[in-house]
Amino acid sequence: MTCLSNGSGDSLVPTKKTTLKRLPQRASYQRHIIYQILDEGLVCHVGFIDSNYPVVIPMTYGRRGNNLYIHGSAASRILRAASKAQVCLTVTLLDGLVLARSAFHHSMNYRSVVVFGTASVLENLDHKLSALRAISDHIMLGRWQDVRKPNSIELRQTLVLRLRLTEASAKIRTGPPVDDEADYDLPVWAGELPISLVGGEPVADPRLVSSIELPGYIRRDQTD
Amino acid sequence: MTCLSNGSGDSLVPTKKTTLKRLPQRASYQRHIIYQILDEGLVCHVGFIDSNYPVVIPMTYGRRGNNLYIHGSAASRILRAASKAQVCLTVTLLDGLVLARSAFHHSMNYRSVVVFGTASVLENLDHKLSALRAISDHIMLGRWQDVRKPNSIELRQTLVLRLRLTEASAKIRTGPPVDDEADYDLPVWAGELPISLVGGEPVADPRLVSSIELPGYIRRDQTD
Repeated sequence: MTCLSNGSGDSLVPTKKTTLKRLPQRASYQRHIIYQILDEGLVCHVGFIDSNYPVVIPMTYGRRGNNLYIHGSAASRILRAASKAQVCLTVTLLDGLVLARSAFHHSMNYRSVVVFGTASVLENLDHKLSALRAISDHIMLGRWQDVRKPNSIELRQTLVLRLRLTEASAKIRTGPPVDDEADYDLPVWAGELPISLVGGEPVADPRLVSSIELPGYIRRDQTD
Repeated sequence: MTCLSNGSGDSLVPTKKTTLKRLPQRASYQRHIIYQILDEGLVCHVGFIDSNYPVVIPMTYGRRGNNLYIHGSAASRILRAASKAQVCLTVTLLDGLVLARSAFHHSMNYRSVVVFGTASVLENLDHKLSALRAISDHIMLGRWQDVRKPNSIELRQTLVLRLRLTEASAKIRTGPPVDDEADYDLPVWAGELPISLVGGEPVADPRLVSSIELPGYIRRDQTD
């Protein structure tokens, strides 16, 4: 089991950056909750400072234990910039629209994780390969075994960054709207509209050899 | 029709920040494409610099013409920080997983917009009200007419920021995987798994007065 340098037991230690001041009851520093949200997401938004201005780019990612991995082209100027800077990596799962009786109390049900840290570049080709497998397994378990693995040229063309999960927090809202007591009698429908990411019917590549069948790990309900 | 100060016709002028160097064929600066992506998204990720480190937080938003609006509690330290800084606001729509024959050529189909700028705080209560309506209309058209509108106390408790759509770009990937020519004969299923955000069955607030019926504007396929 991985031990966090600044964590005790199953929780991360809140820091100045990760302590929620507003609505602290929505915060969690429990590692299994943070992992669960990260493992369910498909896209993260990575923020970093480039020439004094903030940049936020969407990326895929993977997790293994206490490490998060992101990757991109070694030619990517923007990823190179991120590798030298402090980053903030955020994953947000939208679970529903919260429809209150007053405009003011409308909200969203969501689970999000914010991770702060400095990413480091993986140089060793074995480590890169292992991280790329973690990303592949995260997006679609079973895929890695099926496909042609990266060769050494492709590995060199790929920049892989590792971000340790040391300074992170989760934020969660669930449940019905919370209206002002006086508003509960208003003749307005209130409740939640659940929202989820769902997979559709797989679309075969037009150049797919026709005898190749759809593997069992590609399921229509992949993201349920 | 809104005219952009630095735009000509229906396109924004690419700047140093918004010019895509990698895969420039995926970039678009056309206003109607940028608007379409922004209008379809429900959550944006706002990045800004706070005490020399980057912060990325998920938020809802609205658009009216050439203005984007975000809002939060006036007591929010983090939103106050964002209102004084340059921000990067990113919206990402995930459309599918792109499954290639090689690990290296796996990708995602997506549409994203990145906006750079400095947000300004709306002080005028009428302007705030109008911006909050834009956010409400964006999330669920028809809702605003139904609910109790914000009173002046609630308006003062709400911080509303405006970000002009002056420096922005869209990035889009669609279609099947693009494999190395030599890999097309591999016995590996390849194609796309479409992904979309869908609304589920509305869940009534446990305290809902039972005679109130679900309004027509809350549709199960809200996000389709």
